[in-house]
Amino acid sequence: MTKRTLPPRRFIKPTFEFLIEKKRDGGEFTQEEIRYIIDSTLDGEMPQHQLAALAMAIYFGGMSAQETADLTEEMMLSGEVIDLSHIAKPKIDKYSTGGVGDKTSLVLVPLAMASGVVVPMMCGVEHDYVINTLEKLAAFPGFKSQQTTEHFSNQLAKIGGAIIAQTPDLAPVEAKLYALRKETGTIPSLPLITGSVLSKKLAEGSEGLVIDVKWGNGSFIKDLEQAKQLARSMTRVGRSMKRRCVALVTDMNQPLGDTVGTALEVKEAIALLKGEGPEDMKELVLKLGMEIVRLAGVAGSTLSAKQTVQRHLTDGSALEKFKELIRAQGGDPSFVDHPEKFPQAKHVRKLPAPKRGYVHTINAAMIAHGVHILGAGKTNPHDKVDFAVGVSEIKKVGTQVKQGEPLMMIHYNDESKLEQALDHFKNAYRLAPKRPTPPPLVVERVA
Amino acid sequence: MTKRTLPPRRFIKPTFEFLIEKKRDGGEFTQEEIRYIIDSTLDGEMPQHQLAALAMAIYFGGMSAQETADLTEEMMLSGEVIDLSHIAKPKIDKYSTGGVGDKTSLVLVPLAMASGVVVPMMCGVEHDYVINTLEKLAAFPGFKSQQTTEHFSNQLAKIGGAIIAQTPDLAPVEAKLYALRKETGTIPSLPLITGSVLSKKLAEGSEGLVIDVKWGNGSFIKDLEQAKQLARSMTRVGRSMKRRCVALVTDMNQPLGDTVGTALEVKEAIALLKGEGPEDMKELVLKLGMEIVRLAGVAGSTLSAKQTVQRHLTDGSALEKFKELIRAQGGDPSFVDHPEKFPQAKHVRKLPAPKRGYVHTINAAMIAHGVHILGAGKTNPHDKVDFAVGVSEIKKVGTQVKQGEPLMMIHYNDESKLEQALDHFKNAYRLAPKRPTPPPLVVERVA
Repeated sequence: MTKRTLPPRRFIKPTFEFLIEKKRDGGEFTQEEIRYIIDSTLDGEMPQHQLAALAMAIYFGGMSAQETADLTEEMMLSGEVIDLSHIAKPKIDKYSTGGVGDKTSLVLVPLAMASGVVVPMMCGVEHDYVINTLEKLAAFPGFKSQQTTEHFSNQLAKIGGAIIAQTPDLAPVEAKLYALRKETGTIPSLPLITGSVLSKKLAEGSEGLVIDVKWGNGSFIKDLEQAKQLARSMTRVGRSMKRRCVALVTDMNQPLGDTVGTALEVKEAIALLKGEGPEDMKELVLKLGMEIVRLAGVAGSTLSAKQTVQRHLTDGSALEKFKELIRAQGGDPSFVDHPEKFPQAKHVRKLPAPKRGYVHTINAAMIAHGVHILGAGKTNPHDKVDFAVGVSEIKKVGTQVKQGEPLMMIHYNDESKLEQALDHFKNAYRLAPKRPTPPPLVVERVA
Repeated sequence: MTKRTLPPRRFIKPTFEFLIEKKRDGGEFTQEEIRYIIDSTLDGEMPQHQLAALAMAIYFGGMSAQETADLTEEMMLSGEVIDLSHIAKPKIDKYSTGGVGDKTSLVLVPLAMASGVVVPMMCGVEHDYVINTLEKLAAFPGFKSQQTTEHFSNQLAKIGGAIIAQTPDLAPVEAKLYALRKETGTIPSLPLITGSVLSKKLAEGSEGLVIDVKWGNGSFIKDLEQAKQLARSMTRVGRSMKRRCVALVTDMNQPLGDTVGTALEVKEAIALLKGEGPEDMKELVLKLGMEIVRLAGVAGSTLSAKQTVQRHLTDGSALEKFKELIRAQGGDPSFVDHPEKFPQAKHVRKLPAPKRGYVHTINAAMIAHGVHILGAGKTNPHDKVDFAVGVSEIKKVGTQVKQGEPLMMIHYNDESKLEQALDHFKNAYRLAPKRPTPPPLVVERVA
């Protein structure tokens, strides 16, 4: 574990006004200026209103590739950078910008582990309506996502993988900057997103990173072009920080897989680890898995990468690794073999198609909101999450349905919440008389 | 004196984030949204960092003519709006964006008064290196610029003019916004400048406003195009608020007149009120004076406006009005007839021309800084100002000089300050072998 050590400085501090005006007028910050901004943000020397003006100037003025790389590096160096050099195996991490029904990490991490790749995954705990990886793993009784860096490092050495919560020691400036950005309309700045995400991911000790940039109605990036730009920005910065990086731009214009909900998604992940499960999830796991093993150097060619990943999905070795991971973090692995042990909702009812036709579009965000309303998410940090609720058997875009046929099955415990959730589910679906062209799952690969 | 009275509201308050994002994305605020922003700025409900982000978004996104007018009006309505309807005569005010050596108001106000126009002038007390009108008037022993609105109103009714400090009751939100803008690089936003200036000027009770927008190295607006835009923005807003408005865009690429310094400038103003004084000041006073009497309806044609103004400058009536004004505000008017009573510097020395040639450019800001260093300005609010120091007999752009001939005379009291001031004066001058074309004083008239 190394902390930043800086060379003695010969840097004359500019005023914050000067820095704001420089960016406002299209100037490019030097690395020292960026270091000063980050240091002053971390120790609170830079007042919030000046930081806000600077962030908005960056939103409009952008940042060069070099500035973005410097920003990411300085943010990373604001805290602990984990050193995993004592682990000989290749260490590759995965990051997703987040999507509805995305249970990829639950499958991908054990799959990579089974393929001989070490996955040092720390997850953000930033909540929105999407159920994140750690919230899903919480369905395993006893599972602990809060772990020390020591435990993390030891677990990686021992079993080759870990999925824990990002420790507050990692890029601590990021939390401060993010809190400000949320209140000042500066979340959608590509360089700031890049710095925010990569400063933490690259502090986790991996040698490479596979990035899943999602675009669409279920992602915070609604625009495909923006998603492509973010993919390019991230891989460029990753490379400039000497990490192997590849990004896939993928579709998030409908939920991934057939389920949305905590236990329902975990069960779908377990099915995938047995070589079963829905096609779109299989495809995404396969493609991201191939990128991981190729970045790791475990497989040379595309064909051998595909074979490696497919073999470990079907021979049960990935499933075994998943159990090892659950056990290593205090969880009860018997739930993997007996998914029926997960809590089940008292009621299951269908969402009937209001007319015959083809599923034309699904607003994934609305589905997630509906599931959130049923009790799957926390509105306040101390809310109790209902693991059982959610939706399953989602009819995906392009599916033909008859009137009254279920568009999905709704799992719920609390009648009083159903009405409002139903509104969201109904409004999420648009049916049309003609079969639409389903969007490609992987739109672009950026390496 | 009226305070704002608002109709009952049916306005649902948006979040500040929403307002920031709206402007960020190119949206146009409604009047109610602008009122909410201004109200929230005044009562501190809107946090500084959100206001800063909004200001920067306005800097980049601009504001429509309607938004700028709404902003100005809402800022004005944040405080007292003076009602001078009990005064029958036309009431016209003048505003200048500020320039080095600009003693126009000292001449123009009594000149307009003598021409039958009431001038309700309140001046900002915002300091920079330029000696403002109130600082000049302070050279008259006993003169009080801090006056109540009652005194102001009574004085206007009695003698037809007043030059006082803006009371804190006028557009109180402006001070809060300005303080934030100074620290966040958002001073140069045209709609924010327009709102800031006009919200206060239009609260002073005048029916019309003559605006002098200065551009050049001695103005905060360095760019001619920007000055023209500001002139258009201000007259448009003034008109939309039912005031007669005209703006002149004038040159500030060298000091105005022959002097810079408190008493030196007052003495030059007194000379102008006697029909003497330097040509550029005469021209500016004449042109601005003509605009005032025309806006007031005192003179119909250009010719009669010119004759009216010229007559009162030469027949001593403007000079008399100046004495009346000084007396009405507690000052000693005998200084007008005996300018030798003003404090004089212990030392006067020349700034010799380093070579023969023509004065090619003068950096007016540098001259002002030099005079400031000699003691003419306050660095802290409690500093004592030296009325005597300054420069006189300034050789203007286009003047031919021999080597060693004085470029200006420097009036100083403190030897220890001379060196640094001299550096500024020397560096302010550029001589060239060829006669330059002097820039036009009035570049554009915007009505």
